[in-house]
Parts: sequence; structure tokens; C-alpha cells
Amino acid sequence: MTTGHTSPSARKSRIASTMGKAKILMEAAPYIKAFKGKVVVIKYGGSAMTSEELRDSFAGDVTLLSLVGIRPVIVHGGGPQITRAMGQSGVEPVWVDGLRVTDAATIRVVQSVLAGEVNPDIVRLLSGHGAVAAGVTGIDGGLFTAVPKDDRLGFVGEIEAVDPTLVLAMLEQGIVPVVAPLARGTDGHAYNLNADTAAGALAEALNAEKLVYLTDVEGLYSDLGDEDTLLPRVGISELEEMIASGSASAGMVPKLRSCISAMKAGVRQAHILDGRVQHAVLLEIFTPEGIGTMVEVR
Amino acid sequence: MTTGHTSPSARKSRIASTMGKAKILMEAAPYIKAFKGKVVVIKYGGSAMTSEELRDSFAGDVTLLSLVGIRPVIVHGGGPQITRAMGQSGVEPVWVDGLRVTDAATIRVVQSVLAGEVNPDIVRLLSGHGAVAAGVTGIDGGLFTAVPKDDRLGFVGEIEAVDPTLVLAMLEQGIVPVVAPLARGTDGHAYNLNADTAAGALAEALNAEKLVYLTDVEGLYSDLGDEDTLLPRVGISELEEMIASGSASAGMVPKLRSCISAMKAGVRQAHILDGRVQHAVLLEIFTPEGIGTMVEVR
Amino acid sequence: MTTGHTSPSARKSRIASTMGKAKILMEAAPYIKAFKGKVVVIKYGGSAMTSEELRDSFAGDVTLLSLVGIRPVIVHGGGPQITRAMGQSGVEPVWVDGLRVTDAATIRVVQSVLAGEVNPDIVRLLSGHGAVAAGVTGIDGGLFTAVPKDDRLGFVGEIEAVDPTLVLAMLEQGIVPVVAPLARGTDGHAYNLNADTAAGALAEALNAEKLVYLTDVEGLYSDLGDEDTLLPRVGISELEEMIASGSASAGMVPKLRSCISAMKAGVRQAHILDGRVQHAVLLEIFTPEGIGTMVEVR
Amino acid sequence: MTTGHTSPSARKSRIASTMGKAKILMEAAPYIKAFKGKVVVIKYGGSAMTSEELRDSFAGDVTLLSLVGIRPVIVHGGGPQITRAMGQSGVEPVWVDGLRVTDAATIRVVQSVLAGEVNPDIVRLLSGHGAVAAGVTGIDGGLFTAVPKDDRLGFVGEIEAVDPTLVLAMLEQGIVPVVAPLARGTDGHAYNLNADTAAGALAEALNAEKLVYLTDVEGLYSDLGDEDTLLPRVGISELEEMIASGSASAGMVPKLRSCISAMKAGVRQAHILDGRVQHAVLLEIFTPEGIGTMVEVR
Amino acid sequence: MTTGHTSPSARKSRIASTMGKAKILMEAAPYIKAFKGKVVVIKYGGSAMTSEELRDSFAGDVTLLSLVGIRPVIVHGGGPQITRAMGQSGVEPVWVDGLRVTDAATIRVVQSVLAGEVNPDIVRLLSGHGAVAAGVTGIDGGLFTAVPKDDRLGFVGEIEAVDPTLVLAMLEQGIVPVVAPLARGTDGHAYNLNADTAAGALAEALNAEKLVYLTDVEGLYSDLGDEDTLLPRVGISELEEMIASGSASAGMVPKLRSCISAMKAGVRQAHILDGRVQHAVLLEIFTPEGIGTMVEVR
Amino acid sequence: MTTGHTSPSARKSRIASTMGKAKILMEAAPYIKAFKGKVVVIKYGGSAMTSEELRDSFAGDVTLLSLVGIRPVIVHGGGPQITRAMGQSGVEPVWVDGLRVTDAATIRVVQSVLAGEVNPDIVRLLSGHGAVAAGVTGIDGGLFTAVPKDDRLGFVGEIEAVDPTLVLAMLEQGIVPVVAPLARGTDGHAYNLNADTAAGALAEALNAEKLVYLTDVEGLYSDLGDEDTLLPRVGISELEEMIASGSASAGMVPKLRSCISAMKAGVRQAHILDGRVQHAVLLEIFTPEGIGTMVEVR
Repeated sequence: MTTGHTSPSARKSRIASTMGKAKILMEAAPYIKAFKGKVVVIKYGGSAMTSEELRDSFAGDVTLLSLVGIRPVIVHGGGPQITRAMGQSGVEPVWVDGLRVTDAATIRVVQSVLAGEVNPDIVRLLSGHGAVAAGVTGIDGGLFTAVPKDDRLGFVGEIEAVDPTLVLAMLEQGIVPVVAPLARGTDGHAYNLNADTAAGALAEALNAEKLVYLTDVEGLYSDLGDEDTLLPRVGISELEEMIASGSASAGMVPKLRSCISAMKAGVRQAHILDGRVQHAVLLEIFTPEGIGTMVEVR
Repeated sequence: MTTGHTSPSARKSRIASTMGKAKILMEAAPYIKAFKGKVVVIKYGGSAMTSEELRDSFAGDVTLLSLVGIRPVIVHGGGPQITRAMGQSGVEPVWVDGLRVTDAATIRVVQSVLAGEVNPDIVRLLSGHGAVAAGVTGIDGGLFTAVPKDDRLGFVGEIEAVDPTLVLAMLEQGIVPVVAPLARGTDGHAYNLNADTAAGALAEALNAEKLVYLTDVEGLYSDLGDEDTLLPRVGISELEEMIASGSASAGMVPKLRSCISAMKAGVRQAHILDGRVQHAVLLEIFTPEGIGTMVEVR
Repeated sequence: MTTGHTSPSARKSRIASTMGKAKILMEAAPYIKAFKGKVVVIKYGGSAMTSEELRDSFAGDVTLLSLVGIRPVIVHGGGPQITRAMGQSGVEPVWVDGLRVTDAATIRVVQSVLAGEVNPDIVRLLSGHGAVAAGVTGIDGGLFTAVPKDDRLGFVGEIEAVDPTLVLAMLEQGIVPVVAPLARGTDGHAYNLNADTAAGALAEALNAEKLVYLTDVEGLYSDLGDEDTLLPRVGISELEEMIASGSASAGMVPKLRSCISAMKAGVRQAHILDGRVQHAVLLEIFTPEGIGTMVEVR
Repeated sequence: MTTGHTSPSARKSRIASTMGKAKILMEAAPYIKAFKGKVVVIKYGGSAMTSEELRDSFAGDVTLLSLVGIRPVIVHGGGPQITRAMGQSGVEPVWVDGLRVTDAATIRVVQSVLAGEVNPDIVRLLSGHGAVAAGVTGIDGGLFTAVPKDDRLGFVGEIEAVDPTLVLAMLEQGIVPVVAPLARGTDGHAYNLNADTAAGALAEALNAEKLVYLTDVEGLYSDLGDEDTLLPRVGISELEEMIASGSASAGMVPKLRSCISAMKAGVRQAHILDGRVQHAVLLEIFTPEGIGTMVEVR
Repeated sequence: MTTGHTSPSARKSRIASTMGKAKILMEAAPYIKAFKGKVVVIKYGGSAMTSEELRDSFAGDVTLLSLVGIRPVIVHGGGPQITRAMGQSGVEPVWVDGLRVTDAATIRVVQSVLAGEVNPDIVRLLSGHGAVAAGVTGIDGGLFTAVPKDDRLGFVGEIEAVDPTLVLAMLEQGIVPVVAPLARGTDGHAYNLNADTAAGALAEALNAEKLVYLTDVEGLYSDLGDEDTLLPRVGISELEEMIASGSASAGMVPKLRSCISAMKAGVRQAHILDGRVQHAVLLEIFTPEGIGTMVEVR
Repeated sequence: MTTGHTSPSARKSRIASTMGKAKILMEAAPYIKAFKGKVVVIKYGGSAMTSEELRDSFAGDVTLLSLVGIRPVIVHGGGPQITRAMGQSGVEPVWVDGLRVTDAATIRVVQSVLAGEVNPDIVRLLSGHGAVAAGVTGIDGGLFTAVPKDDRLGFVGEIEAVDPTLVLAMLEQGIVPVVAPLARGTDGHAYNLNADTAAGALAEALNAEKLVYLTDVEGLYSDLGDEDTLLPRVGISELEEMIASGSASAGMVPKLRSCISAMKAGVRQAHILDGRVQHAVLLEIFTPEGIGTMVEVR
């Protein structure tokens, strides 16, 4: 019975050192309270998806959100992996007006990469951190129905309908849905979707509290070339101006459009976060300062 | 108001010709009644998965089962597609004692083909026939947890645990689950499972009514070389003898073992069907004659 | 183990012959999908209720509807049986302006025939085909509350209120309700209802998908005397014209009025079917051609 | 504003006179508490069913039980009404060993009287007192399944199975089930049941708290001929002795057998009450003294 | 087996004497039917809370309401007990413009008396009569949130928000909530509420059927000084006139204001009852005459 | 639009400083996962209840537990407050064999302090930290029923029955129950309970995961006089020895007895924690080291 004894002074010093932990946990309480039971749709991509270290911190963040009762939904892209696989498979890219055509061979590569590589890898990553996650494509359960966006582009889809039944059933079971941006066309074929747009449409359909874009920039700048002009907060009308004036980068435009549309449909907040920062999602949700750019309804 | 008029005699002849339809629908009634609400796990593979015509008749069968309130669950393989993709990707197969080693490169091809090609194609196929289907891999929602089957074989998994929560949530929503035979290893890696074994284990966990194997043979023969010895019915103990005596083909053994295990765990019937016959599943379930070999508890 | 063996050629020929069955079952799928979970109120009467062969085919139809997840509700009449019973019991019919008076003696005969003969016989008939059916009168559970239609006619009721709680509880249990057209008067007495009107009012209260009248005519004719003028489809306004112009037969008027009222209240389709045709209900619901006259909202 | 004024003394005297009411309501409280939510199966017959005054007091009792949250289930007979109807319809009774044969003509009269007269009249009676009641026969919802009791007696059934689903669904809705003692035979025909036996079997299937027989005697006597020997309480073993020794009247035997069987299956109490006493059911349940004979498990 | 025998004549006379009980129970039926499942908020105070005999009759009334399925909610005051405790504890009352100031010492006494004496005593009293009751203060579950009513009065609260979740959860379990008129201020302190106002606000939040004030007067008089002018019924506009004209006593004004507000918010009836009459609540609810003054929407 | 801009370097340094927070939150994840949905009964007393700083840290801990989905239940004592109030109220303590007698005057003081001071203060404290809490005494909802522990001690109760319905209904609503150790005696009087014993009995009835005692000692020592012999873990049998050998202090005995009884009834772990350490509860549950003494089933 003497084993395990520690000296009183050792115990005191140990307790003192854990007191800091307690204070930080305490600070998280009001944020947990505010977002409990709320849906947060996260577009996951860029460095956060490619760097091993950032992948890990992202998985930790999503797991913690899920554990404390917030309901994260992940929508991922897969651009770099698709480009690499296209090269390996020898499918020659075709271009129309500067846009890549998604022909029958290409859509098979896209589907294979999104549903066969990226998606199950994310699910396994989250599982490794203790979350219960499950992957679906937009074809599953009739989640996304699409029509061709432009006949010349082939199997690039524009979302026509969203049926969130399957995603809601997963959330009800405490499962984190991981969604690949594919759709079933009204013609029965598989279609590729822009992941930013898919995330926005899903946030709308789920009546999400937040729509979060993990990007490879710090956030939105009032002057694109000047790092000193990062905008911590921005309104919908300002986004509309940015798109109209061309001051938003090409890659940012679908995100901004989706933010505008989702927030007009009832999503409460949207965020453009820097996915290159470890624990970006956690810091945005659980600390007072916030990071990146927050879009407000104002 | 005169448009659409038809002559009385034309109407009579039309009705007479539809009467046969009515009789056939009537005959299905007792089978629908018997299997309503019951789970039927179908291992889908072979010709039924490769011939366009058979794919279509299979999709029609599953859709009809689902519509009348039976609960089909599809577990698919993907051997031929994996072999083809291995060739294309230039991954060299390595062999140990005549068994292919699934190393890190191979498991990525396997996952990519199963989750990225075969699975979403089946989901889309079923959707095209009017079913609401959704694909999952055994990694999703912690469905299958595996340990290495043999250290020399790499990422070939043996099922250690089955958590059917996600599949049950889908069935509850009237969704047809389509399951790829992958598992998350207790070490966090992806593992490949034998699809026959996965189907059996899932049937057990779901307390299924039936476990159906779609194969490229007519059924079980008492004398493997003699077509005249097809067995319409067989008992568990006879299956055990077949395995012991080596009179079952190598490909058939995992099916037989799974049938035995599933039925000992409470599954009521198992079937070895000829997937080369159109509508094999429908005919087995909805007609009095049955086809292929039925395994009984006796 | 040799018992039960069949020759390969015998098996092939058997399978070939069952293939036609499969095709017909397949054709039913879209109709099952369209009507799953929907309520179909069927007014059952005439030859379909008196001919042994037609009774049987009707019971089969209702059973199949119920098995595939459609929710049939039967409202029956009983005119011929009442007339016969009146004769046997020696109750003398009294007439006012050509309408039979339902005095205290008569209403007892009516109740006895409807609730004591016709209703339980239909329940037993359906049970014999495998449906789970249960009979109620409009008095049960406060289903129909009535006031006298015309003081001179005695216990002939006009529906004042419908409480579908009991019928809904049955549907929820998968039970087919069989309803006798009686009501409890606000004065506490039993009242007889017109079964056509009762069916329409119940369809309204249940927010039914379809209201089906099984009659002893082929359907509606634009010219009552000319069989060549059967109307396959007709709109509400045309029905209103028919009633106004007197071109509908006396027995058809309550059906037409009920169709108009029910469809204005949200019932989606109404049908005047020929109950003398075997499986009329099944053919109307499960085949593309349809039979009889369909009333549309247009 | 002066209308409606009453003098202070008038108010005081009015209040004083209502105080007695309050005391009596108070006394009922412990009985309501004890039986809340419990099922009480009441076999209803004899004078209680024929005297207008007793019918009224019975209906009041059942309504009050239902209102305070007790769950009464009524099983009725109909002997005298059947005998009368047999006479009117001219069906000649046939006798075998002193028992009346229920041939095809007779069972139609029985069904017609029970389901068409007695049952809806009771439902209407209860409705008139404010209860929500609904009539079913034992054929409805597969409630009672029967086999012939004795081949020579025709359609006299012995209960083989009880499926209380429909009755439970009614109780769940706060509806008072009124049950006619008919059954569907395993051969598909209608069968007549002994109402006493049916009440006992239903009490068993519903796991009732009490099984109450309303009779035309005061209760059980230890000496049949001596009114001074009424037994206020009796045990199961004493009932068994009474049957064995022949000291119970022929009409009482099925009641006693049913009491024994039901109580052995878990019903807590059985009562033989004098249905000729107004409010017999209410007095038995709501007052400390009790009336008639109570059967105890002892 | 002879024990317990009674003579036939003794039995008859006993039954005759209980018949009156049955009639009175019968009379209660329509009132039970009308109020089943409805919420009745009762402000409990005055003599009904101090006289041992009246406490008992009140507890009996509330218990019976609860047993028959009506949902009573008790809001109590505690003025006399607080005054007594103030004296004992030596806290000196301070007055501003004739109103007592509730400083920090006083609110502790108030809380201690309401939550520590009055509330648990009522709960125990009700438990003693067979009800399942539970005490809460307005602080529990965030029931009442308050702001200071007047800065000079200290911790006297004005209700700013009502969250009935906890009270509804209790009602759902068949528990009678007993509520002490305290609130949590938006500043985190405990506040005292006027019990009349709290009862009205709670009736509003619960969408109660009735709001009952037990007082020490007979009801409302059209002429305060003249007992002959008791008003059996009064409308909202008349109450407004009474307040405006000053013809209501000071103690009555908060009750009248609460009645007006609650009824405008959907409460169906309000009552000013004489709590000095035994069983006042029961008589008001269960007898046709009613007592005291009923406030109607008219 | 320039407002709110911060320099890139300022942003980097801010993010760096928050990274530590993220790591600490991450560490809590496995503990949250392990205890999600589990009930933790905490006996709250001693310094943790009297020091303002410790009260605050305790309230923060309980709030955080509740927010992340763990279900804390607080049982409090009130010894010092009762002693103080006894003095103020002038009630003279009476002693029997060294134990204080709880006569009628004393129990009123006890009830008043526990239910009127301590309990609502804790509820308000928790509310101030963001939890939704509600106070109950053991009298509410029939939670604790007691018999006299020793006739000479008066209203000191021994628990005879626990009905956790009300507490479970609160937990279901996400409310933190705060329980005062009172009981309703089978004689209808209020009884005082030992809070340690009440906590243990409630943990048993709720099938709690953990039972935590907040004390004013560091934990259990193998040698009471020697601080170096603190036991980090101890088994049930060792506790039994401690009680038998008299090596446990008098105040510790009821805690030890309750631990033994609760764990034998299925509670998984019990803890003797040092309530003088800030965030003792949080540290015990959310950090790997643990503090105080853990009782194990071994």
C-alpha cells in the first residue's frame, strides 16, 4: 500500500502547474455554450489538407468541436490531387476559353480521387483523433442534384437541388459528415462541383450557424496587394462591391458568392480563415480574438 | 372534350391484356408480406457487376426490394477493377506463398478503386432506377475495425469489430447502403477486407433475414465437375463437410465460412445465386421456385 | 444428397419462363414509389361487392396496396343487402317525394346490415388475403358526426364533422380501416350516411392522395347514351357543368359532388372506375394506361 | 352590472350545501391514484345491458373511469338479442347434446346482432355520456383467432391466439374499446366466442389490472341456495374447488375458469359484480367497501 | 369460508347509502372532461395558507386536480412569514414613500423564508395528500429573470423574461410545480417578486387555461363597501375601469393587472376566489355554480 | 473600411500566443469523450462552499462539465450555516450520547438554511457562470423517503427509498440539479439527511459514473498522521479495513461507507478530492494525473 506515494511538496507543485490548464478550459466555456448543437460547415482544402502537421491540427479541431456538442460538417476539394492523378493516368486536359473541360475520362479520375483518396483519408484522419466520421459524396442519398454548368465544359455541375436527409441523419447520430463535391446530374451522370459552392449550398440547406472557408491566404484585404489592409470584419454589401469591382481574386470569387448567398438564406456568420495556421478553426471558434476575416450580415 | 375517346372494344381488349400483369403482381404479395422490414445483405460482384445488362437488372431488383419495404444492403467487391488499376498505375504485385501482398502503394489503389470507382458507380446506378442509395466504406462511422490477417500480407484485414450504427441510420431513412470492403485498422491505417467475409459479418451485425451471394456459378454442386448435381438446398453441416473435404472451390470457401458463421449467429437463410441470370435476386425472393442453392439452418 | 437435383436444361427453361414475371414487377416500381405512404380512399360497392370473383380480386388489390406501403381506406355501402334485409324483417318502406324514409325501425336494420354483415365480411375477406384489416362504423371514435339531412327523411344524416383520429391510429399500425357509413347524430341517435359522400369527406379529412369510386359503369361519358364518348380525363369545372346541366345520372351526382369538394380541399386525384373489371384498383394504380375516368384539378 | 348579484347569506348557504360534494370527491382520490393508467376489462351483459336505467349508469361509470385516466375495455355478449333475432329470422335452432349448433345461417345472425346491433349501440351509449368509444369485433385487426371448439357445434370457436395491437392503439388514443366476441377462424370463417372467455383472454393479453364480470347475481355464494353465504372475497384455489365439486352454476363456470386463467397469467384482481345494482362498477372501484365477490390470487 | 358474510338486507342498505356518492362523482365528469390536460395556475396565499384546516382542504383539491389529469401549478407568497422572520432576525425595515426597501439583509430573509420554509412545507403538505409535488424558486432553471423595479426599493424585481422549460418538464412527469416568487436579476442577485404578478406571468408563459387567485375576500364587488354587490362575472374592460377609477383595493390591483395581461395573452379565464372557503378550488372547477368572481375575456 | 487593421507581425505574434491554448484544449478531448453523457454526482461542502474564490472555481468547473455534455449532479451540505443560524435563532442544541438532537425547532432551522439559503445561492452561483441549474430538496418529487435513524435523535433520517424521476427529467433538459439533503419521512415530517450518504444513495439511483466528495483534506492517508502516506488509489476492501480498524476519521466514515455501497451497486469510480484546491473537479476529470484519492472496484 505504500506504492504510489508522492511527497506533499511534489503534489503542490504539480497542482500549481495544472492550474493554468484550468483557466484556459474555463475561457472556452462561453464559446461552447454559444455554439452547442449548431452546425458549422467547413470547406477544407489547400495547405491544411496537404501539410501533415496542419492535417493533424485540423483533425484535432474538428474532433473537439464534435465532442463538445457542436456539429461540424466537412466539405473538401481535391484540386492538387486531381491534377496529379490526371498526369499519372495520362488523360490529356482540354481547355475551352481558359477553363478545363471535364470529359468522361476526366470525371472518372475526379470521382476516383475525391471519393477514393481524399474523402476516406480525411475520414480515417478524423477517426484517428477520436471523432466518429463518415464520408459521403454528393451523389449519396441524393444529396446534390446538378445540371451542366456550361455545355462546353462537360461534367461540371451547377447545383439544382440539395437533399440534406442523409447528412442530418448522420449529425443526429453524432457522426461528422465528410462530403466530396460530386453530384448526380439530372441525366444520371456523375458531375464535379466547385467545392466552395457546394459548401455554401450545404450550409444553406442545413441552416448552418457558420460557414468557414479554410484558405491559403490570411483573409480578405481591402487592397489585395497590401498585407496591412487585412479586413477583420466585412459586410455582405462590401463583398458584393469586391466582386463587382474585380478587387477579389479569381479563386476567392466563388467563396464570396457562396458567403453572400448562404447568409442571405439564414446562415449567421461566414469566415475566410488562414488554413496555414495551426488550429485555425479552434482559435476562430473558441477564442475572443478570432482570426482571418469574418463576414457579417450587416 | 372529344379528344382521348377510345372505342369500347379497344378498351376491353386493353384491359384483357393487362389482366395477366395483375395476376403476377398478386403472386408477389405473400413474399412481400414475409420479408417486409427485413434486412437482406447482398454480396454483389462478378458478371452481375460487369455486364451492363446484368447491372441494370440488379439495380432494378434492389430498387423494387427497397420500394416494397424490404431493406437491402449491398456489399461489393472490385477484384477485376483493382487488377486493371494496378496495371495502369504501374504498382508491381508482390507475392508471398501465392497470395498477393497489399503494401502501402497497393492499398491506396484498392481504396481508390473501391471507394472512388466501384462504390459511387453502384450508388449512381441504383439512383438511376429510383432507389435512394448511399455509399460508405467500412471506415465510415467505424463500421469495420480490422487487424492484420497475416503480417506478411500487409494491409489485408481481419474483421475485429462491426459497428452498424451508420448503416442502421441509413436503413431507418429508407436509404440503401452500398458498402465498400475497407476497414480502419486498430493501427489507424486503411485495410482491405475480403468482400464475402465483410458481407457475412455485416449480415450478422444487422441480424439480417437473408445473406445472398451473387456469384458466377449456378450454385453449389455435390460433385463440383458435374452440372447435374446442383444442390437446391443444403444444410450448415454439409457446408462444413465441403470445406473439410476440400470439395468446395477456393473462391467459394470464404462464402461458405461466412454463411456458416452468419447463420449460427441468427441469420435465417443464405443463398448462393447465379449472378449471370437477369433478376436473380428478384426471382429468388419473389417467386416460389427459388434459384441457385439455399443454405438452411437444419 | 441427390434428391432435388434438376437437369441444367430444365433449370434454364424454368428461369426463362420466370423472366416475364420479373419484367412486370419492374414496371410496377415507379408507381409504388409515387404512392408510397399516401392514403387512397376507396368507395367500395356494386358488383365488386356482390360477385364472388370480383370480391376476391378487390381483396387482393387492397392487400397488395397495403403490403407495398400505400395506405388504402375502404368505405363501403350496402344498398342491396339493406333492401333484402328490410324485406325479411317486414319493415314497410315509407316514401316522401320519392325518397325512402329512414325511421327508427329502418335505421336499426341499416345499422345491423352495415355493421353486422357487410363490414365484418369485408374485414374477413381482406384478412383472408393477408391484409390486417379492421372495421369501424362512423360512430366509432366520433369519426362522423351528423345532423338530419331533411326532417321528413328521419335518420338520414348530413355530415357535420369528421374526426379521423381512430382511422389515423389504424393506418399508423399498418391496419386497413374498413368504414361503414353510419354517424352519431348530435342528438345521440344513429344516422345513415350516403357512402359516396362519406368517402369524399373522409378523403378530405385524411388529406388523401386519391379518392376512388368503384361503380358499375365504365366511367363518365360526355354523352350519357353513347359508349363511344367515355372520358378518360375530366376537370372539376366540367363536373360542375355536368351536375348543372343534368347530364349526370342521379346515382352519379353524389360521387361528382364529393369529388369536387374533396379535390378543392386538397385531394390530388379522383377516379370513377369500373368495378366490374377484375383488379380495377390495381390496374388504375400500377399501370401506365389507367382505366375509367380520372378527375383532375385543372 | 347589478345583474347576477346574490345576497351574502344565499351565497353562504349555497357553499355549505356543496361542501358535501367536495368531501365525496376527496374520498375518490386514493382509488384514482391506485388505478391510474391501469387496464380494467369489463364483461358487460345481463340486466346491465337490457334495463335502460342500468345501461345509463353503466355508461356513466365507464366514462368516468376513462376520464380520470383508468383504461376500461368492454367485452359484451348478446345472448337474448341473438335468441330474439333467431326467432325473427326463422332460423331453426339445432341441438346436440343440449348445446345449440351454430351453423352457417346461425353465425350470420350472431354476427349481425353482435356487430350490427349490440356493439354500435354500446358505442353510441358511451359517446352520449362523453366517452370516446369505438367498437371492434374480434375479427378486426386479427384480435382473436379461433379453431372450432367441437366439430359438432359448428362455428363455435375456441381462442387460439390474441393480438391486442389494435386495442392497445385505441387505449393509447384515450379511446374506450368495445369488443364483440367474434373471431376469425384459422379456416377464414367467422366464429362465435363465449364472451366470458373472450373477456378473460383479452385481460390476459392486455396484462389488465382487473377483470370484472357484470352478472345478474349478487356474487358467489359458498352455498348456492343460501343468500346469507355471499362470499366477499375468494381465492383461486376455492374457485377450482367450486368447479370440481359442481357447486358453481353452469353459467358461472366459464367466468370462474377465465378468472383462474387470467389471474394465473398476471391479472391482479377479478370481480363478480351484481350488474343489477346501479353504478356497480364505480362503487367497486371508487369506494372502500366494494361490492359482489372479489377473487384474489391468494 | 364463513367469515365476512353479511346479511342480504345489510348489503342492500349499504349499497343504497353509497348511491349518493355515485351521483356526485357522475356530476364531476363533464368538468373533468373540459379541463383534462389543461394548466391551471393558482396563486396560493392568505388564510388558505395559514389555517391548518384550509391548508388541508387546499392540498386535497390540488391533489385531486392532478390525479384526474388537470395540471395545477402553485405560485405562493409568504408575506406574514417574512414579516415574522424579519422581526426574529432583527433586520430593521426601511421605508421609502411608504414602500418597504428590500436591501441585501432583507432579501436573504425573504429567500430563506420563501425557499426554506413556505415552499418545502407546501410540497410536503401536497405529498401528504398523495400528489407528487416539487418546489422551485423562480431562480431555478432560469424561470424568472428580473430587473430592479425601482432603484430605491433594492432587490424588488420586475419580471423581464420567463423560461418555463423546467416547469413544463415537471408537468410532463405528472409533478405539481410549487413556485416561490424569486428571480435571478440580470445583475446576478436574487430578487423578490410580487407573487400575484409572478402567477400571472407564469400563466401567460404556460398558456394556462385558468389563472386562480385565492384571496381573503369573497370576490370583486361593484361597490367595495357593500357585500350585496359581489360580481359573479366581470369583463376585462370593467377591470380596467376599476383600476382607473381607484375602486379596487391596493392589494387587489396587482391581481387585476395580472388578470388583464394574462387574458390578453391567451389565458382563457381568471378567478378571484375566497380562500377562506374550504375546497374553494375544487368547487370552482367541479361544480356548475362556481364561487367568487370569474373574469371573462368579453 | 480601414478601421480594425492590424499589422501582419502583430497578427503573427497574437496567433503564436494562442497556440498554447489550442494544445491544452486538445488534451481535454479524450476525457470529454470518455465521460460524455455520464452522470457525475458531486458532494459539495467545506471550504469549496465557503471561500469566495473556491466557490467561483467550483461553479466554473460544474458549468464546463455541463456544457461539454457530462451530467453533474450537486448534493450539498450546510453544517456551518446551520450552526450559525441555530445561534441566531436562539434554538438551544440538545445532545444525546454526543450527537445533536434534531427536534421540531431544529429541523425548521435546518430546512430553512438548506432550502432557503445554501441551495438557491448555489443555483444562482452556477447560473452566474452560464449553467442552467435548478435546486430541489430531497422532499421534491418524492426524491428521498426517510425513516428516523434513531428515535432519540428526532428528525434525523435514514434513507428508505430514492425516486430519481425529477432529477432525471432535469438532466434530460440539460439542467444541473442541486440537491438539498432533506427527506420526507414516512410519517410526513421533514427529515435531515447526512449529505455524504445522500450523495452516495443518489449516485446509486442514477447509476452514476463517478461519485466525488469535495473535502477539506488532501485525500485518504494510509497513516492518518503522516502527509507522506497519501493514497492515490485505493480498493473497496481497503476502505472496509479502514472503517473496521478505526483508522478513518469520524467525518470520513459516512463518505467511505457511501463509496463502498455505491460502487457495489454499479457506480464506476469514487473520488475523495481536496476541495481547497481551485478547479479540483476539473483537474480530476480533465487531466491525466488526477488529484486526491480514487476508489476503485478492485
